Amino acid sequence: MGLKVEKLKINFKTLEEFKKFKEYGLQELSMLEDFQANIVEDHNVSPFYGIYFGDKLIARMSLYQIDAKFDRYFYPPQNYLELWKLEVLSDYQGKGYGKQLVDFAKSFGLPIKTNPRVQSHGFWEKMNFSKVDYEMERDRGENPLVWYPEGVEAQQH
Amino acid sequence: MGLKVEKLKINFKTLEEFKKFKEYGLQELSMLEDFQANIVEDHNVSPFYGIYFGDKLIARMSLYQIDAKFDRYFYPPQNYLELWKLEVLSDYQGKGYGKQLVDFAKSFGLPIKTNPRVQSHGFWEKMNFSKVDYEMERDRGENPLVWYPEGVEAQQH
Repeated sequence: MGLKVEKLKINFKTLEEFKKFKEYGLQELSMLEDFQANIVEDHNVSPFYGIYFGDKLIARMSLYQIDAKFDRYFYPPQNYLELWKLEVLSDYQGKGYGKQLVDFAKSFGLPIKTNPRVQSHGFWEKMNFSKVDYEMERDRGENPLVWYPEGVEAQQH
Repeated sequence: MGLKVEKLKINFKTLEEFKKFKEYGLQELSMLEDFQANIVEDHNVSPFYGIYFGDKLIARMSLYQIDAKFDRYFYPPQNYLELWKLEVLSDYQGKGYGKQLVDFAKSFGLPIKTNPRVQSHGFWEKMNFSKVDYEMERDRGENPLVWYPEGVEAQQH
């Protein structure tokens, strides 16, 4: 059975499901507070994508497009995607859902930057993500990994 | 016995001790590679501070000063510190070493921003750090917590 990657609608049900993910954080709390206060304008631009198993959200990620003028990672400088909070609920791991989300992100054809937990670097290598040359001013405290589509390479500083 | 917070000298011994910390990442690997290649120029500006128990490094953090012109968190806009990778080795937790490092960071009198694991928010609240109003463009995927010295408040956007 093939499950689809979907852009997530932000509503009380989705926000409740988000609580099951380890990387639940300030972003989700802020969306919940806005929802409770009936301020919903921002959530049309929710950057979350996910996979449902039946009506249960079992995997998610956030994708956010960065404008070329802020690009310090890719050459030629261009719009790229930041991928955060990739996570598959533990009962559903090892079934390819993480890869499915990453493949979906790649399908936009833009370079991708992510900043994963150090322990997950093996996964990202399998996804063909590469380490950048660490630069303290740019990468402060992060462990950036990037994916280069064809014709794109690292920016030299 | 009072242990001191020290600015860490980056050398092979320190880099070896860093491997015991969970947040060992690209930054440390990059320093190690530079060291092995005898490129040491950058490490005079190492942003690491730590606490030794005897000759064993048991706690560390990284402090990096951000220039006022990049300040999007504090009002009035000013130089501030980013604090990353605060960590106490597990055998030495619960003895106040984390607080000692944070107090050391505060002693510079500059505002501080950190982006901790969600699970550690209780600790940061005790340190008088506050949540910011999450802004997607600025805080992408982070959970920023900040500390305001007297006379400093949140920047409004």
